[in-house]
Amino acid sequence: MKKKIALVTLATGYGGPSAVKALLAGGWKVFCNDRGFSDTKQCKAFAKANPKVKILDALEPEKAVGAVVKQAGRIDLLFSNNFVPLYPSAVETAALDVYRDYLEGLTIEPFRAARAAVPHMKKQKSGKIVFMTSAGPMKGLPNLSTYCAARGGATALMKALAQEVGRFNIQVNAIGPNYAENPTYFPKHILGKPFMRKLIKEECPIERYATPEEMVALIAFLAKEESNFITSQLIPFCGGWAS
Amino acid sequence: MKKKIALVTLATGYGGPSAVKALLAGGWKVFCNDRGFSDTKQCKAFAKANPKVKILDALEPEKAVGAVVKQAGRIDLLFSNNFVPLYPSAVETAALDVYRDYLEGLTIEPFRAARAAVPHMKKQKSGKIVFMTSAGPMKGLPNLSTYCAARGGATALMKALAQEVGRFNIQVNAIGPNYAENPTYFPKHILGKPFMRKLIKEECPIERYATPEEMVALIAFLAKEESNFITSQLIPFCGGWAS
Amino acid sequence: MKKKIALVTLATGYGGPSAVKALLAGGWKVFCNDRGFSDTKQCKAFAKANPKVKILDALEPEKAVGAVVKQAGRIDLLFSNNFVPLYPSAVETAALDVYRDYLEGLTIEPFRAARAAVPHMKKQKSGKIVFMTSAGPMKGLPNLSTYCAARGGATALMKALAQEVGRFNIQVNAIGPNYAENPTYFPKHILGKPFMRKLIKEECPIERYATPEEMVALIAFLAKEESNFITSQLIPFCGGWAS
Amino acid sequence: MKKKIALVTLATGYGGPSAVKALLAGGWKVFCNDRGFSDTKQCKAFAKANPKVKILDALEPEKAVGAVVKQAGRIDLLFSNNFVPLYPSAVETAALDVYRDYLEGLTIEPFRAARAAVPHMKKQKSGKIVFMTSAGPMKGLPNLSTYCAARGGATALMKALAQEVGRFNIQVNAIGPNYAENPTYFPKHILGKPFMRKLIKEECPIERYATPEEMVALIAFLAKEESNFITSQLIPFCGGWAS
Repeated sequence: MKKKIALVTLATGYGGPSAVKALLAGGWKVFCNDRGFSDTKQCKAFAKANPKVKILDALEPEKAVGAVVKQAGRIDLLFSNNFVPLYPSAVETAALDVYRDYLEGLTIEPFRAARAAVPHMKKQKSGKIVFMTSAGPMKGLPNLSTYCAARGGATALMKALAQEVGRFNIQVNAIGPNYAENPTYFPKHILGKPFMRKLIKEECPIERYATPEEMVALIAFLAKEESNFITSQLIPFCGGWAS
Repeated sequence: MKKKIALVTLATGYGGPSAVKALLAGGWKVFCNDRGFSDTKQCKAFAKANPKVKILDALEPEKAVGAVVKQAGRIDLLFSNNFVPLYPSAVETAALDVYRDYLEGLTIEPFRAARAAVPHMKKQKSGKIVFMTSAGPMKGLPNLSTYCAARGGATALMKALAQEVGRFNIQVNAIGPNYAENPTYFPKHILGKPFMRKLIKEECPIERYATPEEMVALIAFLAKEESNFITSQLIPFCGGWAS
Repeated sequence: MKKKIALVTLATGYGGPSAVKALLAGGWKVFCNDRGFSDTKQCKAFAKANPKVKILDALEPEKAVGAVVKQAGRIDLLFSNNFVPLYPSAVETAALDVYRDYLEGLTIEPFRAARAAVPHMKKQKSGKIVFMTSAGPMKGLPNLSTYCAARGGATALMKALAQEVGRFNIQVNAIGPNYAENPTYFPKHILGKPFMRKLIKEECPIERYATPEEMVALIAFLAKEESNFITSQLIPFCGGWAS
Repeated sequence: MKKKIALVTLATGYGGPSAVKALLAGGWKVFCNDRGFSDTKQCKAFAKANPKVKILDALEPEKAVGAVVKQAGRIDLLFSNNFVPLYPSAVETAALDVYRDYLEGLTIEPFRAARAAVPHMKKQKSGKIVFMTSAGPMKGLPNLSTYCAARGGATALMKALAQEVGRFNIQVNAIGPNYAENPTYFPKHILGKPFMRKLIKEECPIERYATPEEMVALIAFLAKEESNFITSQLIPFCGGWAS
C-alpha cells in the first residue's frame, strides 16, 4: 500500500512535533516546512532530530503545498500548525502591529495553505485539513483579546471551509488547545512553578496539563480516514476548561 | 497487563454494537447489558453474535454497574448507550407520556449509570464515561422537540458531571451523532431511498451517512487513556451538519 | 388599541415578578398562575401586591392557557417561568426523585404550557414564547448536574420548538440567568455575605449581581413585537459568566 | 439630565442608520463618522438626512473617539459598525488582498475604536461597546470563508474584551445579523426576487427578512443602561437561522 502524504507547517513548535510523531507512527510520509528553517542551523537540527521527515525549507504556505504535490504527487493531509509569540497586554496598550502579526500568522497562514491544498484535494476526491487553533476564544482571554480574535477567526475559517468543501470529500477540523504542555506556550520548566500550579488547579477541571502524547493521540485520530465523518468541528483539548 | 473493564449499556442498538467492537478490538473486557435481554431469545442471539462479551442480562443501570464491579473488581469505562423509539409529532400533538419516556430513557438512564459508576472510579482514581446522545439539539429538530429536550438534557448532564468529577481523574464526554447509519435511527435499507438521498444531500455537508466503522473509530479514541485530556465535550458526529 | 394578552406561569418567584412588572408597564393584560396559589393566603397576598393582574389560581399549565384564551380570546405571549428548590449534591448522592422533580418542573412544565399555547398562536398567526431557563448548563455546575440537565433540556426544547413553529410567526426564546438577584436563587440578604462577595468577584466578569430592574428590561424587550426577528436563542443574562 | 454620548462608526451603512435612529430616539447625543465622508457630497447628504447628529468627517477610529471626547467630554457608547463589500469566491480562487481587507475592515477596525474608547470608559467607570458583526460564522458560509473568518474574529475579540473590561463596568456585546434588510447586504429591491424568496423560505425558520425597525429595537435595547448585565454575548439576529 502506498503511503499517504502529509504536510505539517511550522513544524518546529506548538502542535508540530506532536503531528510529526503521530503521522510517522501512522505510516504517513511527512513533509515539514517552517519559516525558521531559513536558519540553516535550526533546519539541520530539526532534520537530524527527525530523520524520517522530508524537509521543505522555509517556504511560503503555497510553495510548501506545491512542493509536496510536486515531490509526492498528492497531498492527503494538511496539518496547518500555526503559532506566534504572545504579547499579553491590556486592550488600551495593545499594539496594532502585533495584532496584524497575529492575524497574518494565525488567520491568514492557514487560509493560504488550505487555499493551495484544496484544488489538489478536489482532484483527488479526498483530503483532510486540520488547523491548530486555540480554545482561548471559547471563553475569551483577558489581556489577549487580539490573540483571541486571530484564533477565533481561524476557527471560523475552518467551519466555513468545511461547509464549502464537504461535498468534495474534504474534511476540515480544528484542534483547540489550552493547558497543553509544549515549548511554545506551556514549556515544561514553568509548569511546576507555584503560580502555574495554582492556575491549573483553579482553572482546569482535570487539574493538570496535557502531555505531548495526548496531543499526538488526538492528531493521529483526526488524521485517520476513519474520522472522516467528523468535519466542521473545533475539538477543544483543554481538560474541560471550555466546552 | 490486565485487561481494562468496560460496561456498555443498551448494547444491542444505536452505538452499542460499535462500542462492543471498538472495545474488544482495543483489548478491553466488555460487559453488556440491555433491557431487551429479558427476552431470552434476543439475549441468546446477542451472546452468540458476541461470544467474547460478558452478558449481564436485563439489569437496571445501578445493578449493571454493581455486577461489573463484583465480577471484575473495577470499572474503567462506562459507555452509556441510550436510545428510544422515536415518535415524531408537531408540538401540539406530542404526547406527554412519550416525553416522559424520552426523559427516562435518554436523560435519567445515563445519570443512573454514571451515579453508580462514579464512586468506584473515585476509588480507582480514574475512569471514563461516554454518553451516546445526539447532535439533534445543536440545531433543533422540528417535530422532535421533546426528543431534542431529552438529548440536550443528557448533553448538559455530561458537561456538569465533567466539571464536577474532573479532579478525580474521571473524564466525561458525549458523542452527538446525526446521519450515522445504524439499525436504530438510520437503518441501512432506507438510506438509498430517494427522499433519504435528497435529505442527506441537502442537509449534510459531506453528503453521505456515517459508516458503523467510523463510529467504532470514534468510540475507540474516546475510550483510550490517551484521550483523557478531552473532557466536558460533546463530539458532534454528523458530517458537518451541526458545529 | 386592544391590549395584548400574556400568561406568566409560576408568577410568584424567579423571573415571575419581573415579568409581571415588565408586561404591565408595556400595556399588556397579564394573567398569572402559580401552583402556590392553592394556598389561599399566598394567592391573596399576590393579588393584593399585584392588583392589575388577572389571577388564575393553581392551574395545570394546559388549563391556565385554556383559561386565558377563554377569558381574553387569545394569548400573545407565554412567559413560562419555571423554578424548583435546589438540592445541591455530588453525583453519587444525588437523588433520583429530585432529578425527576427537576425534569417535571423545569423541562416538562414549559413544554406543557407551550403545547397548549401553540394551537392558539397558529390560529392567530402570531405569538411569542419565552422560557426562563438558566445559564448554568452553558458551563456546567458541579454538584448540580441533574439541575443542569433539566435546564439544558428546556433550552434544547426551546430551540427545537423555535425551528418548528417559526413559519407560523411564533417566536420562541429563553432567558439564561446566573447571578441574578431574586428571592428564589439569589435572595438579597445573602448577596452581601463574604463568601458570596468572593464568589461574584471571582466568577462574574462584571463583579455584581443583576438587579430585578435589569431582568424587567430584558423581558420587556423579548416581549415586544419589535424583537420578533430574534428566535431560537438563549439570551445569557449572567454578567459575562458564560458566553 | 445630561444627554449620553454615543459614537457610531461607518454610520452610512449596515447597522449604522438603525443605530442613529435608535440612539436619537433614546435621547442620546450621537456622533457619526464614516470613511465615505471624505466625499463631501456624501457627507452633506448624510448631514442633511440626519440633521440631529454630529458629523465627524472621515476620521480614523482613534481620531473619531478622540474627537467625541474632546467635544462632549466623554463617550458612553461605542457602536462599532463595520462592513465591507463582499466578494464571494470558492476558497481556491479567494484573493488574499480581499481577505486582508476583510480583516482590516471587520476585525481590526472595531479593535481600534474599542482600544481608543476603553481608557475614557475606565475613567468614567462606565461604558458600553457594541460590535456589528454577523451570524455567518455560527454556521459557516460556503464561498465566504474569509469573510466568516474576519467576522468570527470580531466576535471572539468582543468576548475577550468583555472578560477583560467587565470589572470596570464596561459591557461589550455584538450583534450577529443574517437576513436583515439593509442596503449593504440585503437591499430591499432584491428581497422579492424569486431566488431570494426561495432562499429565505428554505434557510430562515421565520421565513422573512428583518425590518430596519427590528434592528433599531435591538440596538436601542443594547444601548440602554438596563441591559448592562448582558455582556460578552453575541446576540444572533437572524430569524432562527443559527442559534
